[in-house]
Amino acid sequence: MGKVLVFGHKNPDTDSITSAISYAYLKKQIGMDAEAVRLGSISGETAFALGQFGFEAPRLIEKAADEAQQVILVDHNEKQQSVDDLDDVQVIEVVDHHRIANFQTADPLYYRAEPVGCTATILKKLYKEHDVEIPKEIAGLMLSAIISDSLLFKSPTFTEEDRKAAEELAVIAEVDAESYGLDMLKAGADLSGKSLEELVTLDAKEFTIGDAKIEIAQVNAIEVNDVLERQVELEVLLNSIIEEKDLQLFLFVVTDILNNDSTVIALGQAADRACAAFNVGLTDNRGVFKGVVSRKKQIVPILTEALK
Amino acid sequence: MGKVLVFGHKNPDTDSITSAISYAYLKKQIGMDAEAVRLGSISGETAFALGQFGFEAPRLIEKAADEAQQVILVDHNEKQQSVDDLDDVQVIEVVDHHRIANFQTADPLYYRAEPVGCTATILKKLYKEHDVEIPKEIAGLMLSAIISDSLLFKSPTFTEEDRKAAEELAVIAEVDAESYGLDMLKAGADLSGKSLEELVTLDAKEFTIGDAKIEIAQVNAIEVNDVLERQVELEVLLNSIIEEKDLQLFLFVVTDILNNDSTVIALGQAADRACAAFNVGLTDNRGVFKGVVSRKKQIVPILTEALK
Repeated sequence: MGKVLVFGHKNPDTDSITSAISYAYLKKQIGMDAEAVRLGSISGETAFALGQFGFEAPRLIEKAADEAQQVILVDHNEKQQSVDDLDDVQVIEVVDHHRIANFQTADPLYYRAEPVGCTATILKKLYKEHDVEIPKEIAGLMLSAIISDSLLFKSPTFTEEDRKAAEELAVIAEVDAESYGLDMLKAGADLSGKSLEELVTLDAKEFTIGDAKIEIAQVNAIEVNDVLERQVELEVLLNSIIEEKDLQLFLFVVTDILNNDSTVIALGQAADRACAAFNVGLTDNRGVFKGVVSRKKQIVPILTEALK
Repeated sequence: MGKVLVFGHKNPDTDSITSAISYAYLKKQIGMDAEAVRLGSISGETAFALGQFGFEAPRLIEKAADEAQQVILVDHNEKQQSVDDLDDVQVIEVVDHHRIANFQTADPLYYRAEPVGCTATILKKLYKEHDVEIPKEIAGLMLSAIISDSLLFKSPTFTEEDRKAAEELAVIAEVDAESYGLDMLKAGADLSGKSLEELVTLDAKEFTIGDAKIEIAQVNAIEVNDVLERQVELEVLLNSIIEEKDLQLFLFVVTDILNNDSTVIALGQAADRACAAFNVGLTDNRGVFKGVVSRKKQIVPILTEALK
């Protein structure tokens, strides 16, 4: 068996990057020639976590098949979120916490998905099942992933299993989860150096609901007004994307990581109907979703119902 | 949460029936209102195993949604192998040892697949992970499943993990695996009382490869000629199924459980191409696959490659 590449999804978040590193480490301990790689740029938040625990960013790849026959997917399974030449390699394992869709194999594989808030929470179990000790630095990365996916333990995706894992990992990593976590989120929420294009694409996902195509981009911020000040230019950019992709809705979500509200800019013909589903009226294309932080759990299901 | 139905695939084999019983038992121990049910008739082999350890066959269902909102799939994931109204219920868990295909969910779920020879081997781990003791009778069922799927430990699908599980289960069940196993396989290989329809549907699975629909039925036999004597009538029946379901291939596999070769009858427009992939030419629509006993490991992957 040759080298096995381990990677998370495109537009990688902290869970995708750190889970690739954490799982590749575990697989190496149990005898596999595994290497963590990544499919996209590192965010400021992820860079902060890597730096804090002494890791370099994994190597960037665009294709897998020219250097490996087998791969392991972490934090995703849908083909369109994975490496472009996924069909040319064998997926031998998946460790994930998302729904399963657009995923198919020719052979049996190891597939481990659990409905928890973060891939790292599942990886922590796998270390235990294989009786491999989690090094302090890896524990720090895994904790960072849970903090990131749960917005410091506040997202409704955050489960009791995530909480237990985070507590144990904080002890191993010897950090105070709350203060370290806030510093890490702040590093990701520093949007000052970001271009408008970066803001709009950093964490954007397209969804199809019935016949409607919509896109939802989300950024975390400490100073929401830093983003909203640029609303006029932002709208020009969002409208051009709407036209180009023929979207019914572009929802640009700025989440305040301190008070856990989200300010949205909603454009497209379904904008008013979409926001009405949250009992929010738009003023100047803008509204506030109180207590909403999770695209997956608090936004997509309501839009799916409202627009179908 | 209401009742959760737990079931294996259509045309259930011993693993599908006993894994539904064994997993429903585990889930009940940890607080879920789970009921094992089945999607088809019990084979002679399975009846032998159930009788040996004092179980009744689970209740037969044709639809799930009229009595439950949530289901757990064991020993399968492909939609066409599952209950007809699968789209009308929520799949909350899958425990399986097959490839993943034609499977999709709207929400995150618990999905546990491992590339081992039998679902029961994975279930044995889950008992341990949940710290639930395996009752003697359940251990007997789980051992039966491993014996069945591995053709008494001889199939190439049989892994070291299966071997360890089988050894431990035999101790708990207080049976001699070899002698009990041979008796059980013989009970299933007695084809004398079977109608042609039974032979063809007993353990038949449909697969979609690219645009092609194929079906592979497998029976275990001690006297392969007892089946082959009926080839003329068999072909009439197989051709009618091919026409009815618009199949590209029907592969009828008769596996000799004593010498571990399989004689196949291959019909449909892809028959020659399919058998050529095994370096077997067909004479009178018939050929011998030497040393082939596993549909999953030795037949499906090669056909997937040859017909895609």
